[in-house]
Amino acid sequence: MSLEKTIYIGPFVHCESLNELDVCPNGMFGVDEDGKIAFISRDMKGRPLPAHQGWENAKVVRIQDYGFFFPGFIDTHIHASQYPNAGVFGKSTLLDWLNTYTFPLESSFTDLDKAARIYNRVVARTLSQGTTTACYYATVHVAATNLLADICQSRGQRAFVGRVCMDRLSPDYYQDESVESAIRDSQACIDHVKKIDPYFDLVSPIITPRFAPSCSDEALAALGKLHHTTGVPCQTHISENKAEIQLVRELFPKSQSYTHVYDRAGLLTPKMILAHAVHLTKEERTLIKNRQAKISHCPASNTALTSGTAKVRTMLDEGLTVGLGTDVSGGYTSSMLAETREAIFVSRHVAMTDGDETKLSVAEALYLATRGGAKVVGLEDRIGGFEVGMDWDAQMISFGDGVGDKLGLDQSAGLVEIFGGESWEDKVAKWVYTGDDRNTKAVWVKGRLVHSQGNFKP
Amino acid sequence: MSLEKTIYIGPFVHCESLNELDVCPNGMFGVDEDGKIAFISRDMKGRPLPAHQGWENAKVVRIQDYGFFFPGFIDTHIHASQYPNAGVFGKSTLLDWLNTYTFPLESSFTDLDKAARIYNRVVARTLSQGTTTACYYATVHVAATNLLADICQSRGQRAFVGRVCMDRLSPDYYQDESVESAIRDSQACIDHVKKIDPYFDLVSPIITPRFAPSCSDEALAALGKLHHTTGVPCQTHISENKAEIQLVRELFPKSQSYTHVYDRAGLLTPKMILAHAVHLTKEERTLIKNRQAKISHCPASNTALTSGTAKVRTMLDEGLTVGLGTDVSGGYTSSMLAETREAIFVSRHVAMTDGDETKLSVAEALYLATRGGAKVVGLEDRIGGFEVGMDWDAQMISFGDGVGDKLGLDQSAGLVEIFGGESWEDKVAKWVYTGDDRNTKAVWVKGRLVHSQGNFKP
Repeated sequence: MSLEKTIYIGPFVHCESLNELDVCPNGMFGVDEDGKIAFISRDMKGRPLPAHQGWENAKVVRIQDYGFFFPGFIDTHIHASQYPNAGVFGKSTLLDWLNTYTFPLESSFTDLDKAARIYNRVVARTLSQGTTTACYYATVHVAATNLLADICQSRGQRAFVGRVCMDRLSPDYYQDESVESAIRDSQACIDHVKKIDPYFDLVSPIITPRFAPSCSDEALAALGKLHHTTGVPCQTHISENKAEIQLVRELFPKSQSYTHVYDRAGLLTPKMILAHAVHLTKEERTLIKNRQAKISHCPASNTALTSGTAKVRTMLDEGLTVGLGTDVSGGYTSSMLAETREAIFVSRHVAMTDGDETKLSVAEALYLATRGGAKVVGLEDRIGGFEVGMDWDAQMISFGDGVGDKLGLDQSAGLVEIFGGESWEDKVAKWVYTGDDRNTKAVWVKGRLVHSQGNFKP
Repeated sequence: MSLEKTIYIGPFVHCESLNELDVCPNGMFGVDEDGKIAFISRDMKGRPLPAHQGWENAKVVRIQDYGFFFPGFIDTHIHASQYPNAGVFGKSTLLDWLNTYTFPLESSFTDLDKAARIYNRVVARTLSQGTTTACYYATVHVAATNLLADICQSRGQRAFVGRVCMDRLSPDYYQDESVESAIRDSQACIDHVKKIDPYFDLVSPIITPRFAPSCSDEALAALGKLHHTTGVPCQTHISENKAEIQLVRELFPKSQSYTHVYDRAGLLTPKMILAHAVHLTKEERTLIKNRQAKISHCPASNTALTSGTAKVRTMLDEGLTVGLGTDVSGGYTSSMLAETREAIFVSRHVAMTDGDETKLSVAEALYLATRGGAKVVGLEDRIGGFEVGMDWDAQMISFGDGVGDKLGLDQSAGLVEIFGGESWEDKVAKWVYTGDDRNTKAVWVKGRLVHSQGNFKP
């Protein structure tokens, strides 16, 4: 699909490195017919549009009011099928939460009308919240999983879509019948995505053993083999909850640790995304680092289900690659902006015992939500920041027209209030702490406009 | 001011006791000319309006779509003057945060135009978030503090408005000149409120020593005397941060504890609101209980500033009275709904070390935000729940028209998605976890409509 060449003009903010926020108050991007950033100018203040050859007739999109362009968020762990349960978990913890809330809902995805309704909602909603890339868990069902892939493709969200594999310790009414059927069904979902997106350009399949307790040794080994023969990436859960870790110890007596279970199955590779990683030992972290597997940190979920506090600073210091995941519906929110705030807050709780140096700054948490996530999904050369040659996966952030100056509230402009005199760092902090989807005016993936708010037409 | 008699029809939810949520799917309230609840009916399903004598011509307000009436929130601790800094605190902790962010902003309230702009915003914003009662800290300035009282009065928010007293350990440019001037200025603010609201019916003054470190022994004693002679309530901070507690130990060598400092000054009474109470000892809690002083729990702030986790379950079990406070701008949000979520989340972090029984449920956190807060401000007979004879301080909560059923997003309806089949408890949990000001369609205080959204006219 060829796009209209477009020049985007206005302030932009992105993460230069883990702790450096790059703010450009007078920026300009040229985005070409393939949705790639062709050029970047950093000083457009008061100047006429430069006459880039071949760009004279390009469309122009400007930040009209207080706001900036920011890279799209990358949600490295979200259960699309659990979206209707967001916020509903009571006082449960992981293992009873699965049986009480999760399996009954997921098992209902044999109903494709219901699946269509829920999957359309979650893709539309997360796009409206600036999530340009999502790593989705679907359910065990082939048809519904393929439908999710179709919806991502048609709505234009970059996605990894995983059929969930689980052949034991699950309810009778909801599990794979056998290792063979698990592999056959996973292959069917891979084949479907190949058909709709042959080069996995926007949508990619992802091999998805639910987590070690719900997979037999044989299933894990077969999925490891599938991973190696197809080259398709993997995602799973690890070390979320202490009772779960004890269960893994009992179920896999031959493995030294939870991490070793995946390693023995050939699943611990650079293309594996491990969600949670709350209680990893030093030895496990070293193994993960050596295998170059990736970590999806899910702070909202880990707090909601009382799982624990992942030691993000330690993982970063040791050289692990970390991104953020909303983990809907263990996490209550589908918003990566809220998740960014939760990452900062969990780091404060870690700091209460482990010391101030473990705190994540606003810039660091935003890095995890963008550049970090890009590395987790193996697309750091294409998304997560603004560089020439990268894809235009971006959101237009707006604070309205300086709401703090007026007496009347415009609730549609959101809750961020700019009173004047705020530094750029303050504005970004206000967005992270008090912003929501109302501040995301428009969203692009690979240069395509995939969401805009209300009547706003960029 | 006489109001139009009004009948409110629709589901309602309020807290019966700490852990009982009372849900009435088919309710009706009659609210009289004084804004008081005259009658409640619990079974209106499919019936014609009963002909209560004298109510035949009353105005009728109905919940039109998915939603319910809920008591207004009571924010027991919020710094109105710090509102422009919401979300801006970096990695600071209490004592450096005060010097870096807070004192420079507060000191600027000599500028009454600026004060008017900020105070109008914070009152309008918190009303739009369902806060019908707020315990405000203003600044040391008499004129600006009186302006805040005027704004609360004219916008119709029930409020306790405190001129901040601080005569030492504060910047030269921002403190009371002497004990005498502190008392004189505090008295001037009390006199002003007496003039605009003689019986403190909507707006009340509140004596406000900032916190022990910034008040001399003499100032505290004089404020204690003012408290006893005027009967005006008090508010202050206590035991928020470990460095602060150490400082209090050094500054008040004669006092056994932080709590004893206030007790010696005659400030520890049933009309004292103590914010934070993060690190209280058992002995201090017992003294607070014996004196019947009240606690304002500020979870968002305590996490943001890495102050610690207040042990709410312990305080409740010991019989202390606890409400919630946003503590803007130590807290990032002016929303009591967000604060309710934060209270649940902080209780999860407490549970990670102290055990599952310390967890707060959704119902319990909502109790703290309503009934608990009412007790904290001494108005439990008038607000915090729906009972005949109580004031109609209420919010109309709406989830739109069943957004989960549709493909298109109506962002103005907010983020709560009802897919059908949710229990009432699930709906309330979804509101707490995924709701925001967009779900608060209208707000009443003492029967007066003080906020309604956009073009909505109840």
